[in-house]
Amino acid sequence: MAVNLPPLPELHPVPGIRLGTSRAQIRKKDRRDLVVIECAPGTQVAAIFTQNRFCAAPVTVSRDHLSQAATRALLINTGFANAGTGSAGLEDARHCCAALAANLGCSPTEVLPFSTGVIGERLPVDRLVSGLPDSVGALSESGWEDAAHGIMTTDTLPKGSSQKVRIDGKTVTVTGIAKGAGMICPNMATLLAFIATDAAIPSAVLKQCLAAAADESFNRISVDGDTSTNDSCVLLATGKSGLEIRAVEDAAYKTFFDTVRAVLADLAQAIVRDAEGATKFITIDVVQGASEADCLEVAYTIAHSPLVKTAFFASDPNWGRILAAVGRARIPQLQVDRVSIHLDDVCIVRNGGRAPEYSESQGQAVMARSEICVRVDLGGGTASSRLWTCDLSHDYVTINAEYRT
Amino acid sequence: MAVNLPPLPELHPVPGIRLGTSRAQIRKKDRRDLVVIECAPGTQVAAIFTQNRFCAAPVTVSRDHLSQAATRALLINTGFANAGTGSAGLEDARHCCAALAANLGCSPTEVLPFSTGVIGERLPVDRLVSGLPDSVGALSESGWEDAAHGIMTTDTLPKGSSQKVRIDGKTVTVTGIAKGAGMICPNMATLLAFIATDAAIPSAVLKQCLAAAADESFNRISVDGDTSTNDSCVLLATGKSGLEIRAVEDAAYKTFFDTVRAVLADLAQAIVRDAEGATKFITIDVVQGASEADCLEVAYTIAHSPLVKTAFFASDPNWGRILAAVGRARIPQLQVDRVSIHLDDVCIVRNGGRAPEYSESQGQAVMARSEICVRVDLGGGTASSRLWTCDLSHDYVTINAEYRT
Repeated sequence: MAVNLPPLPELHPVPGIRLGTSRAQIRKKDRRDLVVIECAPGTQVAAIFTQNRFCAAPVTVSRDHLSQAATRALLINTGFANAGTGSAGLEDARHCCAALAANLGCSPTEVLPFSTGVIGERLPVDRLVSGLPDSVGALSESGWEDAAHGIMTTDTLPKGSSQKVRIDGKTVTVTGIAKGAGMICPNMATLLAFIATDAAIPSAVLKQCLAAAADESFNRISVDGDTSTNDSCVLLATGKSGLEIRAVEDAAYKTFFDTVRAVLADLAQAIVRDAEGATKFITIDVVQGASEADCLEVAYTIAHSPLVKTAFFASDPNWGRILAAVGRARIPQLQVDRVSIHLDDVCIVRNGGRAPEYSESQGQAVMARSEICVRVDLGGGTASSRLWTCDLSHDYVTINAEYRT
Repeated sequence: MAVNLPPLPELHPVPGIRLGTSRAQIRKKDRRDLVVIECAPGTQVAAIFTQNRFCAAPVTVSRDHLSQAATRALLINTGFANAGTGSAGLEDARHCCAALAANLGCSPTEVLPFSTGVIGERLPVDRLVSGLPDSVGALSESGWEDAAHGIMTTDTLPKGSSQKVRIDGKTVTVTGIAKGAGMICPNMATLLAFIATDAAIPSAVLKQCLAAAADESFNRISVDGDTSTNDSCVLLATGKSGLEIRAVEDAAYKTFFDTVRAVLADLAQAIVRDAEGATKFITIDVVQGASEADCLEVAYTIAHSPLVKTAFFASDPNWGRILAAVGRARIPQLQVDRVSIHLDDVCIVRNGGRAPEYSESQGQAVMARSEICVRVDLGGGTASSRLWTCDLSHDYVTINAEYRT
């Protein structure tokens, strides 16, 4: 199903990070569903979370623990999201943290919990806690691939990205995994994504790095416009490579940031390629807008239009639907007679109307592709923005109509 | 397919209004596709149009003609929307107006054009003009039913509503027709809707009446969140009943307004009941919000969520998706622990979490119904808002993937 999603690449170990995955029977039988990520003492942490006001219990507990203590471990389960579960859900999340802390010999507040799956049902705490010894027993620096499988829900393929880069004569590794296939429209954080590096970098700088990289990756994708209650993205820095970055102004920072951004962009694109029911990977570029906010509003209006998305599914160059979406975007000013639209290299709209040289067969040739770029030129400024989305297919309806059965 | 949409009721003639419909072969063979509505001299007109900035040529021309002259006729075609057609589209629309004016012996600016159908292709002006004599020849006060058929696109059933009411000893008639099945999320106007009355009422008062009634009907429905380029709603008042209403403060105004509002609500609901692929008719009530704008934002966020809509299609009481939609609505403040949600009479969420007494079987019983009310209580104010929407089904994808084939 996934659109040109390559197999999981080699995920390089990150010194100071060990991962263990087990089959705890949390919601389904015999699938990897419980992941522990242990990090070395002194590891710095940056994290961003969903802006959905109904955030899940693990999001609340993670935020709380981050404010209280250093982090020694992440505890991730799939199957149930532990969202909409009220105070009982908070107790469940804290109970699981305490259980893992007892297994690892650390403090409960040194554990951050993450959950994904069905909203509104209690975590099966007993099964989760029973599975912890297996996950802890499996802890290994080479556990990334199993962990990528262990956090999946409706994902059809595991998602990971890994890069090694030489900075100041030292080799630095950045490796990450992510999951997510529906309820995808992140806002300052997304789905579940866990990235680690062995650079030594203070948490304040790490936070800037994560926020900036997410703004060009996870915060620029949409499958269905629904922002999850559980979105969480964590970047860990163990310092084991010996490379030290003290500030954003350091010469080494730029290379490091570019590497982190590339890994996040890989993961974000992988999520769209494996989106529920997706048959096409769509890049939306909006250029020459008055502001980045305007460009994003236009891009999201196109990306969220069911009519545009079904036209992509049908490989139908129904450019009028794209034009109509641009026209209803909530931006202060739109000079319709300056708008042009390209599908890949084919100009379909110029000066707000059908391009004179456009022919339906050109449009059909582009729409038959599995990867298509929609480029909207607003002709009114210098700002631009890019996001990635997918089409709306029968399988999206099937998957989401049958999700709980 | 339509959800509990009753057959077309008797559409009472409105003295002073004649309608004629013909088969002009505009896009499909042998279907009624060309409607002329002629109104008596002195008829007052109120009209509201789409807020999509890429408004169609007929919208531009109608606005222009309304500002220049009284109105003697409406000219409506289905098949092509004449949108995204640039200056050629404007010429086409004006040419058709002039042709009808010649047939009727009036001025071209006394004709208002309306089009619906595929965006981005030129009107087949020759076929349209060739059909005019047939439509004009068919003009009759009893032509409402044929006209209701003649404006349909993907609608499966014609839509009309008609009421007679006694005011100040006089019988006043309000009769209307509408079309629309997809690209439905009106904003100050919707789809195509034509309503006429024989009350005598100055256009300034008529405009207030239409704006207020649309705000509680056409502006409170959504099928897919896409606002059309062609939305137009016209209210004609011929004055032939002898009932005069001079101002909003007149005693007769309230009864008249209530009647107009009831007809518009009938038509708006009919559009949702016949929405593309709809299997369920959903009412969303948001109450106790800080402002009506907040309530509407929450209601639309629920109505536009593909995950909520597919859950309704599957009759799955996946209330977590409704909760997640409320949580991501763009309102300034949300006290999550004061939110409660009902599905019909079943409380599913209380104080921001699953209601303790809620059982899955109760939820399933409600979700099995073809008409469901979602009631969200924000617990933070006195404002409220209601809108109507439908589910997202396989047939929606099929219809919109195959629309142009």
